[in-house]
Amino acid sequence: MKAAVWYGVKDIRVEEKELRELRDHEVTVRVAWAGICGSDLHEYEEGPVFVPVDAPNDLTGEVAPITMGHEFSGVVEAVGKHVTKYKVGDRVVVNPTLTYGKKHEELDIYDGFSFIGLSGDGGFAHFANVPEANVYALPESLTLQDGALVEPMAVAVQAVKEADMRFGDTVAVFGVGPIGLLTIIAAKAAGASKILAFDLSDERLNKAKELGATHIFNSGKVKPAEAVRKEVPDGVDVTFEVAGVGPTFQSAIEVTRARGTMVIVSIFARPIEWNPMMLTNTGVKVTSTIAYSPTSFQQTIDLMGTGQIKPQGIITSQIHLEEIVASGFEALTNDKTQAKILVELSGEF
Amino acid sequence: MKAAVWYGVKDIRVEEKELRELRDHEVTVRVAWAGICGSDLHEYEEGPVFVPVDAPNDLTGEVAPITMGHEFSGVVEAVGKHVTKYKVGDRVVVNPTLTYGKKHEELDIYDGFSFIGLSGDGGFAHFANVPEANVYALPESLTLQDGALVEPMAVAVQAVKEADMRFGDTVAVFGVGPIGLLTIIAAKAAGASKILAFDLSDERLNKAKELGATHIFNSGKVKPAEAVRKEVPDGVDVTFEVAGVGPTFQSAIEVTRARGTMVIVSIFARPIEWNPMMLTNTGVKVTSTIAYSPTSFQQTIDLMGTGQIKPQGIITSQIHLEEIVASGFEALTNDKTQAKILVELSGEF
Repeated sequence: MKAAVWYGVKDIRVEEKELRELRDHEVTVRVAWAGICGSDLHEYEEGPVFVPVDAPNDLTGEVAPITMGHEFSGVVEAVGKHVTKYKVGDRVVVNPTLTYGKKHEELDIYDGFSFIGLSGDGGFAHFANVPEANVYALPESLTLQDGALVEPMAVAVQAVKEADMRFGDTVAVFGVGPIGLLTIIAAKAAGASKILAFDLSDERLNKAKELGATHIFNSGKVKPAEAVRKEVPDGVDVTFEVAGVGPTFQSAIEVTRARGTMVIVSIFARPIEWNPMMLTNTGVKVTSTIAYSPTSFQQTIDLMGTGQIKPQGIITSQIHLEEIVASGFEALTNDKTQAKILVELSGEF
Repeated sequence: MKAAVWYGVKDIRVEEKELRELRDHEVTVRVAWAGICGSDLHEYEEGPVFVPVDAPNDLTGEVAPITMGHEFSGVVEAVGKHVTKYKVGDRVVVNPTLTYGKKHEELDIYDGFSFIGLSGDGGFAHFANVPEANVYALPESLTLQDGALVEPMAVAVQAVKEADMRFGDTVAVFGVGPIGLLTIIAAKAAGASKILAFDLSDERLNKAKELGATHIFNSGKVKPAEAVRKEVPDGVDVTFEVAGVGPTFQSAIEVTRARGTMVIVSIFARPIEWNPMMLTNTGVKVTSTIAYSPTSFQQTIDLMGTGQIKPQGIITSQIHLEEIVASGFEALTNDKTQAKILVELSGEF
């Protein structure tokens, strides 16, 4: 089969690769759609981050070269002999997160984790073998293309859950790349009454407005704290930091009301300088989110199934596997108006 | 009357000062005992912080020179004509915190605040005029000396309330100056099953053990994260940061369990460098505390009244007003084994 394989920085090759042997507790998924994620781009531009290069990964037992792709859906092609929940022909979506599973799911992720498609072969290929436990049924109401959006959507669902948001709360979002946009969609579905979005790109901000932001602000042109106080005088109840740099970290606290919550959704590449008095002076609590629990993954499918969450608007491009470097990774690197690029594999059999 | 008056850095004078006129809603307290607080020391060493020097303070209407002292108890000497709750002879303690009072007490403090004894004349004097609303009755079971400990104790009670601590939780405390010691006492009274204390001074740590810490560690000699994991393998439920510097801020997060809570109790004088990924990797939440609500102040009196909280052990020295500079401010500056120094005024009439 064909697969997009990570060899090194700026070295992802679309090449013939044999599907590894199916294990007894695994399912072979004939991949239909697979999304390119910010972490894929990270591996391409400055990896390895999650890709194991020196020794096999603890949880997957695999090592580079690795077939990438961790946001994918498809149809069950074959099942291992211990598989009980799925049969050939089932439409499924894959939860790529692997954990040690020794603790309650709320704590499990903090013991360490890996991803199918980053630390082991994933979905930028015609077939993928994945543990049955990581396979979820796709409801009738969702297309296979919808299925490829579940994973990033689940990240945003978990972020909103971590915020302890209440129905009617006011919300600010800093950074409206794909996860920022999905966070807006999730916050809206959770009943946010106002959603104020900040970014440096007007094009992204227009997309944010389209997807549910009630107010958009170019943070290069306005002072976030002033802009927010005009709309919500005491500050918003909950702020999501989805940009990952010092200035947005501080602005995110500044726009939040006394005793409100700031959720770190982004990955900070570098330390920041900051005075903790910003919390003492405001009572703002800082919390964070990473990936999603299995429960949140299922809830995301259910909320998409009922139509309460509609993430389709974040798709900016649909491409084929052969084009994944030029029209996928390079497009995301060079064109900041791109949000979610989906790779179609179903038509290629 | 005699009063200890702030004129400037290193310039606190014990001098004759007239008590200002009693207002209708105020009570004159004949001061019995008054404690010297870290913020008093701050004003002495590098103020003004809270002391108004250029214009009258918004909430007190007063300006330097100011009579210091905000941790004090005494006996009602006179009452203004609108005072209804107190009569001459009542034993009372003063809550020195002044706020605008426009919001619920949980939010009120974040609109700004001042202190009697920092922004307006306070308790290092034979008499003090304070609003009736800031006066609390001292129960029979408490001495006037106990009364002078209510204010700092209330800071610690509020800190523990901010931690959302549960009965049986494990706790770490970084920094065991007076407020760190009182936090240990409050956490114990709230049912902490283990309290691990960190400081650089063995003398302070011994005091911490005496007052309720189950384990003490000199953070100059052990790595806090390793020390904690030996006693509590997953990390403690709640950590109080009472030191106010970068290394303790980071250690406080490191020793906390996944999804545990870190409470900033200290005042950070300078920004710190720090990677917010420390939260993303652990799910630790960072919250903070400042002063106390009127409810917490009353609860502190009640908990001291029943004997559940016994802060008397933090007293290291009892002095007279005349000695307040040499044996009070200078002693606290130069002798780090000093915790709480109380000034006795009751014997001086």
